[in-house]
Amino acid sequence: MTAAAKPWMTEHRKPRVVIIGGGFGGLYAARALKRDDVEVTVLDRTNHHVFQPLLYQVATATLTPADIAAPIRWLLRKQRHTTVLMTEVTDIDVERRTVTTSSAGALPYDFVIVASGARHAYFGHPEWEAVAPGLKSIDDAVEIRQRILAAFERAEACTDPAERAALLTFVVVGAGPTGVELAGMIATIAHHGMVEEFRRSDPSRARVLLLEGGSRVLATYPAALGARARRDLIALGVEVRTGALVTSVTADAVQVGAETIPTRTVIWAAGNAASPLGRMLGAPLDRSGRVQVAPDLSVPGHEELFVIGDLAATATDGRPVPAVAPAAMQMGRHAAHNIRRTLEQRDRLPFRYRNKGDLATIGRYRAIADFGRFTVSGVLAWWLWLLLHIMYLAGFRNRLSVLLEWAYSYFTYGRGSRLITGRGHERAASSTPALEPKW
Amino acid sequence: MTAAAKPWMTEHRKPRVVIIGGGFGGLYAARALKRDDVEVTVLDRTNHHVFQPLLYQVATATLTPADIAAPIRWLLRKQRHTTVLMTEVTDIDVERRTVTTSSAGALPYDFVIVASGARHAYFGHPEWEAVAPGLKSIDDAVEIRQRILAAFERAEACTDPAERAALLTFVVVGAGPTGVELAGMIATIAHHGMVEEFRRSDPSRARVLLLEGGSRVLATYPAALGARARRDLIALGVEVRTGALVTSVTADAVQVGAETIPTRTVIWAAGNAASPLGRMLGAPLDRSGRVQVAPDLSVPGHEELFVIGDLAATATDGRPVPAVAPAAMQMGRHAAHNIRRTLEQRDRLPFRYRNKGDLATIGRYRAIADFGRFTVSGVLAWWLWLLLHIMYLAGFRNRLSVLLEWAYSYFTYGRGSRLITGRGHERAASSTPALEPKW
Repeated sequence: MTAAAKPWMTEHRKPRVVIIGGGFGGLYAARALKRDDVEVTVLDRTNHHVFQPLLYQVATATLTPADIAAPIRWLLRKQRHTTVLMTEVTDIDVERRTVTTSSAGALPYDFVIVASGARHAYFGHPEWEAVAPGLKSIDDAVEIRQRILAAFERAEACTDPAERAALLTFVVVGAGPTGVELAGMIATIAHHGMVEEFRRSDPSRARVLLLEGGSRVLATYPAALGARARRDLIALGVEVRTGALVTSVTADAVQVGAETIPTRTVIWAAGNAASPLGRMLGAPLDRSGRVQVAPDLSVPGHEELFVIGDLAATATDGRPVPAVAPAAMQMGRHAAHNIRRTLEQRDRLPFRYRNKGDLATIGRYRAIADFGRFTVSGVLAWWLWLLLHIMYLAGFRNRLSVLLEWAYSYFTYGRGSRLITGRGHERAASSTPALEPKW
Repeated sequence: MTAAAKPWMTEHRKPRVVIIGGGFGGLYAARALKRDDVEVTVLDRTNHHVFQPLLYQVATATLTPADIAAPIRWLLRKQRHTTVLMTEVTDIDVERRTVTTSSAGALPYDFVIVASGARHAYFGHPEWEAVAPGLKSIDDAVEIRQRILAAFERAEACTDPAERAALLTFVVVGAGPTGVELAGMIATIAHHGMVEEFRRSDPSRARVLLLEGGSRVLATYPAALGARARRDLIALGVEVRTGALVTSVTADAVQVGAETIPTRTVIWAAGNAASPLGRMLGAPLDRSGRVQVAPDLSVPGHEELFVIGDLAATATDGRPVPAVAPAAMQMGRHAAHNIRRTLEQRDRLPFRYRNKGDLATIGRYRAIADFGRFTVSGVLAWWLWLLLHIMYLAGFRNRLSVLLEWAYSYFTYGRGSRLITGRGHERAASSTPALEPKW
């Protein structure tokens, strides 16, 4: 943008900032604009912000959806200049500076922040999604919870030993943090959480497999931590297989090389693909569809257009910024600050990712943490993880409420959350559809 | 049954008791058999027991599903002789004494307790169900919550004033306890709970209509209490219409006589139809499909076959026993006791309903209570209602946890629970399907 008169000056109105996505990036961008003399519109296709790092606890019935999600408009209710709309973005016209939505018409903008994140990628096998759901949203988590719990229920009702064994086999594909956390928690609830509740089947004999195509567990962490995580998972009863490339996923089995693993529950944690909105920006994309942004997080040639979070490809000191919540939050704040600097006719600043540490939990009482200069593992790392997550959840629900819920859930193995709900399973592929609850 | 040798005696095994349904009737029957030397199997098509009197609070986003539901097998985990199966009952063969299930095969029984309850009745218009869901299950409650919250979201996104007005019109059909409680809560959250969160629309201008075909609100209560409830509802901003017979329900409007009320959200609380299992028993049914049971709650001619709860038609002192939770609990216990008496070769006792009082809440701080000899209304009745329900919730989650959640929800108008989730809405009729969240 040149120093020439800006549209909002000639039109005597406030600059319009449209933010697409109410995840960590979008929410933190909106919050950072709290005191600025602008008009902010936040668009999301759901009505709620999700604390994604705890989504796996909803998927494994330890926390309930309401524990980790809150309405976006509630979170931003005190910003009188901010409007939140639940709608689908169908187009972004970067030349006319307009965002087209499915229900709120076309919204003109002076600045736009695209923070629409990523979905799962199935490596050219989109048909696997129906049988192997991934974990990005509350609906995903409820779907996975429903599948895991229904498998135990079916195993109890079932009279055929082979079918029962397949029902009690849980396969998690991908040994990144999400896969490790899911596999650890499934093993924990199966082997400890529900044993006394079943009469005909034995949940403690459930098999939990963690299949990783690469050679390491937690490949983005230091090798020693990955090895520790592997040992902890094995101690929890998870069968960890690295170099295990999945070649087929059906409603009945997973194929790994020559081996067929009969299973009725597969969870996908193996890959991400950036939001399709990235392709509408006319900007260069990387291999996974992320937008290659300039150091100030804008798209080259469009300084009014910012891309942040999992949809943005950028680097700090030559190292790619990872697709994690803290990076999205930092980018959200940074994009907001650069909009402010532009309005104040000051130079923009380049984004630098400050990695405060990476954490992953294994089961109920163990975790690993990488703080760059040092690493922590085991129970101490778990307490660190717990403290950090409760701190970040602030503003969401009150911390005490989550802490109590959590303590209660851990103590009772989350039985309060063990509800099989949702009609979504009707569309799921299943070898025994008649067993599903019908209304 | 004659004094002749019983099958379990000649076969040297424990008598088998099959209980169909894990609602209040079935759960209390199973619990009452805790110390008996029998084998109990509880069948339900869901995995959870629901505290139905609070379902309307989930539908109006004050409590979360996990607050009022718990896995049936968890509730019965300490009864080692009790097996819980999540399955659909497809047939009851009263001659062969076998229950056929969709996934657990055929289960022979020596005694069976049918406690499969009721669903909504649409008075010969089953097509209304898609646009006017009723409230019986957790999935129903989540569906209604989704529709109410999505209507407010759509009104905010929408640019057409007529469409916005229709989106902000909520119609509840039927002024029994459920309809009164739903209408009161919708008015409360609309007019007070979310006002500061919207920028383009004004939820406090939402219309809430309670349509009753009969002449009174809460027709089963004393007339003075019904009148009081009506005044309280009007004070909350509900438009109460009695003698308002609904003649058509579509995705766009409700027809009452000559009047067309444009609305996008209709909730059905106008009638019940007994579970279709009642028709498989070869027993006389009443007008609403309930099974007319003998005084001991068995089906005449089949003393091993009991029917209880909302599916049973019986009377105490010439007055029909109402379809309420306390009656189902009492019948469940009574059927269990009569099975025990039969095993001990003692005479069975006739069932007598002990009405401890009827309660209904209006909005957040008012209720009406009918204790037969005296009635209570207003804030005092609300406190009574709160105390009684927390007492009954015991054993479910701990009372403290529900109390805290509740206090917190009431204080914040339940914004933590205001999540639009579930893929079920995809099958719902809707005039603006594109506005729904997609994943």
